[in-house]
Amino acid sequence: MEIAILGAGRVGATLGVRWAEKGHRIIFGVPDPAEETVRGVREQCGSRGSAVTVPEAAAASRVILLAIPWDVTQEVLQSIEPLAGKILIDCINPVKPDFSGLDPEAVPSAAERIACWAPGAKVVKAFNTISDATMANPRYGAEQAAMFYCGDDDQAKSVARQLAEDLELEPIDSGPLSNAGHLESLAMLYIHLAIFGGWGADCAFRLVTR
Amino acid sequence: MEIAILGAGRVGATLGVRWAEKGHRIIFGVPDPAEETVRGVREQCGSRGSAVTVPEAAAASRVILLAIPWDVTQEVLQSIEPLAGKILIDCINPVKPDFSGLDPEAVPSAAERIACWAPGAKVVKAFNTISDATMANPRYGAEQAAMFYCGDDDQAKSVARQLAEDLELEPIDSGPLSNAGHLESLAMLYIHLAIFGGWGADCAFRLVTR
Repeated sequence: MEIAILGAGRVGATLGVRWAEKGHRIIFGVPDPAEETVRGVREQCGSRGSAVTVPEAAAASRVILLAIPWDVTQEVLQSIEPLAGKILIDCINPVKPDFSGLDPEAVPSAAERIACWAPGAKVVKAFNTISDATMANPRYGAEQAAMFYCGDDDQAKSVARQLAEDLELEPIDSGPLSNAGHLESLAMLYIHLAIFGGWGADCAFRLVTR
Repeated sequence: MEIAILGAGRVGATLGVRWAEKGHRIIFGVPDPAEETVRGVREQCGSRGSAVTVPEAAAASRVILLAIPWDVTQEVLQSIEPLAGKILIDCINPVKPDFSGLDPEAVPSAAERIACWAPGAKVVKAFNTISDATMANPRYGAEQAAMFYCGDDDQAKSVARQLAEDLELEPIDSGPLSNAGHLESLAMLYIHLAIFGGWGADCAFRLVTR
């Protein structure tokens, strides 16, 4: 699969490098493709990694991972070609800069705002409830971390599910996009536990059954 | 410990019977203490169970579990004696009658509304993210279900923690009461998965570490 990843920060880089290891082609979309850290990330993807501008990456791929900060998301989406028909995987958490809570403007959820800003795109909320440490290594003993995802388009959900399985995460279908607020709230709980509760990045949610 | 449980529905009954098994004294507060199902629940608690009216139960105990429906909560709290200084354990989920989402009036959270309606009470949000099946049996193989709880009063949190440990749940301190909305959102995610996602009542969240 060809995946455009907008943003090459910790989340975009970690997912990109692991997906490249699994055989996917990764096109990073960044403000400056020649920038030092971008080059390092691209090189970690080997022959399967490239870096271009954000509009070029978005235009090149049917599957786009949004891994940019929440505060620039609207601007970035409006700066690129219409995204109608594209699969938009949103792993953004609309967290306040001091990590004290979610941005009250992200209502009903960041994912639903993104769906408004990218009319016709098939938005799926995914990969937002796990740390980059869990993205890099989803194994917890004999168990896999859960990857909750939700959306209104079956094809987009199935792509997110497959991309989670590729990383050995356990995908958990969490319903329609109107549940995205619950996944963003779960991410906020995770961030609170990790930062203020002393759990750190090496912890993850699971859904257990008997 | 003496625990007043307001409500003897599935949640109140399940927790009450199990706490009675562990040696706690349970005082159910219900509209009609002589009612058939209430008598059944009280009898399951053996000599440690009693049932009185809601105001009597609330007056009798320092620790009160709110296990009543969200839509009568304000009215019930305002019908009883001032609760200042009492430990109020809130396991209420402000879910819409069709389970489609959370009541938009429960903002920022049911727990914070409850804290307003019971001035001076030590409110702790707890036991709201697990099913009654998990309350009855918190073991999932070799693992325990997580019991996320949050509040602003250390003493109240410590009571909730102890009561979770008594039931062999794994208590997870989730910070201040301002995080209650995240726990209510987590409950809504759970309810969605259980009812609409086909997971049923025999599933639970865990927080795993390496």
